Amino acid sequence: MVGEGSERDYVQSIERGFAVLLAFDADRPSPTLAEVATATGLSRPAVRRILLTLQKLGYVAAVGSRWTLTPRVLTIGQHYAATHSFVETAQPHLLRLAEETQESASLAQLDGTDVVYVARVQVRRIMAVSVDVGSRVPAYATSMGRVLTAWADASVVDAVLAAGLPRLAQRTITDPTVFRDALHRVRQDGYAVVESELEDGLLSAAVPVRTPDGGVLAALAYSTTVGRRTEEQIVEKVIPLMQETAAAIGEDLRLLGGTRRLDAPARDGFY
Amino acid sequence: MVGEGSERDYVQSIERGFAVLLAFDADRPSPTLAEVATATGLSRPAVRRILLTLQKLGYVAAVGSRWTLTPRVLTIGQHYAATHSFVETAQPHLLRLAEETQESASLAQLDGTDVVYVARVQVRRIMAVSVDVGSRVPAYATSMGRVLTAWADASVVDAVLAAGLPRLAQRTITDPTVFRDALHRVRQDGYAVVESELEDGLLSAAVPVRTPDGGVLAALAYSTTVGRRTEEQIVEKVIPLMQETAAAIGEDLRLLGGTRRLDAPARDGFY
Repeated sequence: MVGEGSERDYVQSIERGFAVLLAFDADRPSPTLAEVATATGLSRPAVRRILLTLQKLGYVAAVGSRWTLTPRVLTIGQHYAATHSFVETAQPHLLRLAEETQESASLAQLDGTDVVYVARVQVRRIMAVSVDVGSRVPAYATSMGRVLTAWADASVVDAVLAAGLPRLAQRTITDPTVFRDALHRVRQDGYAVVESELEDGLLSAAVPVRTPDGGVLAALAYSTTVGRRTEEQIVEKVIPLMQETAAAIGEDLRLLGGTRRLDAPARDGFY
Repeated sequence: MVGEGSERDYVQSIERGFAVLLAFDADRPSPTLAEVATATGLSRPAVRRILLTLQKLGYVAAVGSRWTLTPRVLTIGQHYAATHSFVETAQPHLLRLAEETQESASLAQLDGTDVVYVARVQVRRIMAVSVDVGSRVPAYATSMGRVLTAWADASVVDAVLAAGLPRLAQRTITDPTVFRDALHRVRQDGYAVVESELEDGLLSAAVPVRTPDGGVLAALAYSTTVGRRTEEQIVEKVIPLMQETAAAIGEDLRLLGGTRRLDAPARDGFY
């Protein structure tokens, strides 16, 4: 139907469309066309065509000479929860864990070498931090990432190491051998506790949530600060609660086994 | 740089890219290539090229002969909150309202003739219903949509009426004249209360959240069920709390006025 040239155009146009959409961020909330061109490395005429296309589709709007995302972009994210029933299944369990521990409870999945929050309940102010859903953090420096990487294919570990382990905080593991040892310990213990590796003072723990066939679907995470809890308290008091919660989510998924939704991630969670 | 043909290719490719992404929904959580082709009306070769492109970009993954969205699509939605500071600013206020009323509190914006939830705190089980952020409901049959439409340009009201007012529940307003009268009453009262128009038994109220320059930025909504509250109780007890909350959000936005973020919607919230 279409030749080689069109094939390439297809791929390139879609790729550039997303690049322009993602150029809108906290540092560039309402960029001009020129600022989008700089951020994406695309020519101004190309950016102009893409912005007009995205405007026509309703994803961006012009405000004077500046551009802004519209709430329609939220709809795209909503399709993830709508097509992955475990997000909804896990919500009451996350809430209960957050209430019991009086700390944030989250669910995260691997996306390349990052982890992405797919659900979160924040306590203290028990509130919907919808802002955080979709946020990304590097897998190697978080308890969630450690759990997801520990049970992933060797290729995932290689990709994480290839992306590098730059120091982000006081106790970031920056040595590949130490990192592999840490993953080995996670597999033995069945959980990960990470302190001051992503940010100084941040203390988090994660356990795997498994599908009925035993695959790791997501990481269930708990986070607090060094002043509030110690690693020993977490291992003794919090990890058992988290393991119960993960088992309860797994059991609900098993009971829902007959649903028409497909929750299994591509093989080992690495897309 | 590129001719007319490429211009059209650009627009068409991006449009089709999004059509394929949005074909993944609750009814089609893990479609085959053929199912995506049927859902989008595109040819199988076109769908194949687009799925492979989206796979390369990390937004979809193949699981056997089926396709599934990856958590990366959540990142797109996250860019909305990251670029619109009012979503974060409003969160503690939504929480307080939800605690005071013991009912759900939401923030919504217009997107065409729908309203889209941009933030939500659900009470009873006070929990993060991140699942609902990005959800869409028709503007005409909701209190949020009534508020957003009441202060919008005449063109928005025309678009809503042109899209039709089909009966969705017992008390849905289906007559354009009655609908215009309802909007007039919302402007006079400063709030909207809607009962059993979207779903039987659903009772909701909304007030405008205004930017420092007086424009309507979003609707703040409260929802409950007919058995739990009456319209009179809502007008007497809940609306004043909601107006306080909306004013507090507006005041925070005024104080943050110097930030680099642009919250003003395109003119009247109609993109």
